[in-house]
Amino acid sequence: MEYVFSDNLASLKPSAIREIFKSLSDPSIISFAAGNPSPLSFPSKELGEISADIFANHATAALQYSITEGYPPLRTAVADRLSRIFGIGRDFDTTIITSGGQQGLELTCRALCNPGDVVLCENPSFIGALNAFRAVGAKTVGIPLHEDGIDPAELEKALQEYPNTKMIYLIPTFQNPAGITTSAEKRRAIYEIARRHSVIILEDNPYGELRFAGEDVPTIKSMDEDGIVVYCSSFSKILSAGMRVGFVCAPDKLVQKMVVAKQCEDVHTNILFQMLCHRYMTERDMDGHIAGIRTLYREKCQLMLDCLDQHMPKEIHYTRPEGGLFIWCTLPDCIPMNDFVKRAIERKVAVVPGTAFNCDTEAPSPSFRLNYSTPSDEDIRRGIQILGELAKEMLG
Amino acid sequence: MEYVFSDNLASLKPSAIREIFKSLSDPSIISFAAGNPSPLSFPSKELGEISADIFANHATAALQYSITEGYPPLRTAVADRLSRIFGIGRDFDTTIITSGGQQGLELTCRALCNPGDVVLCENPSFIGALNAFRAVGAKTVGIPLHEDGIDPAELEKALQEYPNTKMIYLIPTFQNPAGITTSAEKRRAIYEIARRHSVIILEDNPYGELRFAGEDVPTIKSMDEDGIVVYCSSFSKILSAGMRVGFVCAPDKLVQKMVVAKQCEDVHTNILFQMLCHRYMTERDMDGHIAGIRTLYREKCQLMLDCLDQHMPKEIHYTRPEGGLFIWCTLPDCIPMNDFVKRAIERKVAVVPGTAFNCDTEAPSPSFRLNYSTPSDEDIRRGIQILGELAKEMLG
Repeated sequence: MEYVFSDNLASLKPSAIREIFKSLSDPSIISFAAGNPSPLSFPSKELGEISADIFANHATAALQYSITEGYPPLRTAVADRLSRIFGIGRDFDTTIITSGGQQGLELTCRALCNPGDVVLCENPSFIGALNAFRAVGAKTVGIPLHEDGIDPAELEKALQEYPNTKMIYLIPTFQNPAGITTSAEKRRAIYEIARRHSVIILEDNPYGELRFAGEDVPTIKSMDEDGIVVYCSSFSKILSAGMRVGFVCAPDKLVQKMVVAKQCEDVHTNILFQMLCHRYMTERDMDGHIAGIRTLYREKCQLMLDCLDQHMPKEIHYTRPEGGLFIWCTLPDCIPMNDFVKRAIERKVAVVPGTAFNCDTEAPSPSFRLNYSTPSDEDIRRGIQILGELAKEMLG
Repeated sequence: MEYVFSDNLASLKPSAIREIFKSLSDPSIISFAAGNPSPLSFPSKELGEISADIFANHATAALQYSITEGYPPLRTAVADRLSRIFGIGRDFDTTIITSGGQQGLELTCRALCNPGDVVLCENPSFIGALNAFRAVGAKTVGIPLHEDGIDPAELEKALQEYPNTKMIYLIPTFQNPAGITTSAEKRRAIYEIARRHSVIILEDNPYGELRFAGEDVPTIKSMDEDGIVVYCSSFSKILSAGMRVGFVCAPDKLVQKMVVAKQCEDVHTNILFQMLCHRYMTERDMDGHIAGIRTLYREKCQLMLDCLDQHMPKEIHYTRPEGGLFIWCTLPDCIPMNDFVKRAIERKVAVVPGTAFNCDTEAPSPSFRLNYSTPSDEDIRRGIQILGELAKEMLG
């Protein structure tokens, strides 16, 4: 039988990164391609202890159906932490639990966008979000990402050019893939523009707790006096990625609509892990644990930067992140990025081609993404040396 | 700010059942309203043992990102079981893991339906599925459910009336809410009609393993020589509802598109529970465990039927299920169903009004749903007596 797919999904391709992930079973490949947190960032011993207690004493609650909005004690603990760390949450806001940060992004778009509506995004941006928007039929339009964020004037221009813009999607802190942090001034300017145009800002902050250098910058949500910001994040980068627990803080009216959509998608997020997150947050030293992850990533990022400084010809540019998981490398015109990535894989080093992060899927890219949280120190040294040698060869 | 929601979600209401569920925190209420499996159906001790071993020896794999299609050993174990128990799976089929059975239903509709497309459903039908279809913009059209399933002639007529029908949604075994099982003859006739019209059948079988009386009836998927059946089910009714692990067996081309949509929704289903399910299936006595659930539900169902026989006036009709979780009661014209349900709640007995399961949300219903898997025996006795007294009073 010939299957006829829905218009929204017919042309959508699987995420290039998820596909790369599948092909990485070859253990001889040095992968800088993943977006995985370091296994060292999972407090598995403590999670195992709490899990044992839940199975012993609260098994029925952990294994039975629960409510769509999430485990109430976890919602309270998350709301408290968001308020304490990021100054987030007003009277009109509600915090709910989602199945990973991904679901929060997807539900926001489902609640707001009709096919053909525009979502303005930093270009490049997180492919998982871009695909979630496309799967609803929304059009992703990119605004160039500069060293301190998108240019407010370019945002203003885009909003005039696309009056059917429903939301602005931003990862203002340690952006994926570029590792860039939007300045406080630009955040305020962006908020003001969105407010004036009555457009929702979707602030995605999965790496927000992973700052290892520089000064904190206020979240856009902390400026949200008007109820126009949806804030999404998750436990994936601080407790476990595999357990798929994320959260959203947004105006209650909007959250109610997202909850209806979540009922349709998965009824609720797995409840045992919600209980685990709650108890870890309230009974263990979460701040100390996160401080440990920061130290680890500071060292890994510095090592990768040192290796890049040592091996990369000066024609190759790269970002110097103050947190998060990624470095963004940009090649000169004379090195075609796709060739570079292909030849790197032949030499057993995997990176993600920048085209994967383009809002316009047909557009070229001179860049690629490096991840430093997953590979071993030895792999970072060897892999960056190989990439440096390749770049020198291709420069000729 | 005034939020403008997407057309698909703007008019969609939260599931009446999920809302009832929230209001059931009053412990003095006897609830026949849930769709919950009995807590006794969760093998929590054994799941706890396996979980402890996973945390001790395989924590990194359990807590890290994984692939969207699901944990490969679980996919194999599920495919093997589907083949062994239900004769399901051909060369063109693929089995993937979903976040509960709910996600399988939702992904099927997302892959196939544009707004305005029709999904033909048994009337009444499972509200979670109906809402998932509506959330994609599909129109749910009901075909009356008779004692042995929908009438093939009425299906044929509906397909002629709605040429934009994309799929036929059926719960052929121990239907929710009606507790009805479609006969083998009707299944074959329905399959033949769908094949002739090139329409997909979505076969939802969450209760398929819970037969406690009568003879097995072949699944529609087992007849699927043409690759037109998507089969969805889950572990919710046999291992744990709260862990949100389900599965789909469907033609690979269709599954690939569902995987793209799943990447957008939640990247993958929580991996620890996938490992738990796999190890429980392969290391423990799953068949013995399920036999125990069947015995439990046979007794609970019989108790509820005995109480109904004893207390209900003969004007009230109810189904006599051979498995599953639900009995469907139908009131005579002289008792308005909504009044009955409202007065039952005043007397501290909760049931789900039949209108919640209508394909046409504006249509009335003379029926309500009773669940026998969750309440205690004492609550079944007391609650049914109260409902019987109320029915006698309202008959006058």
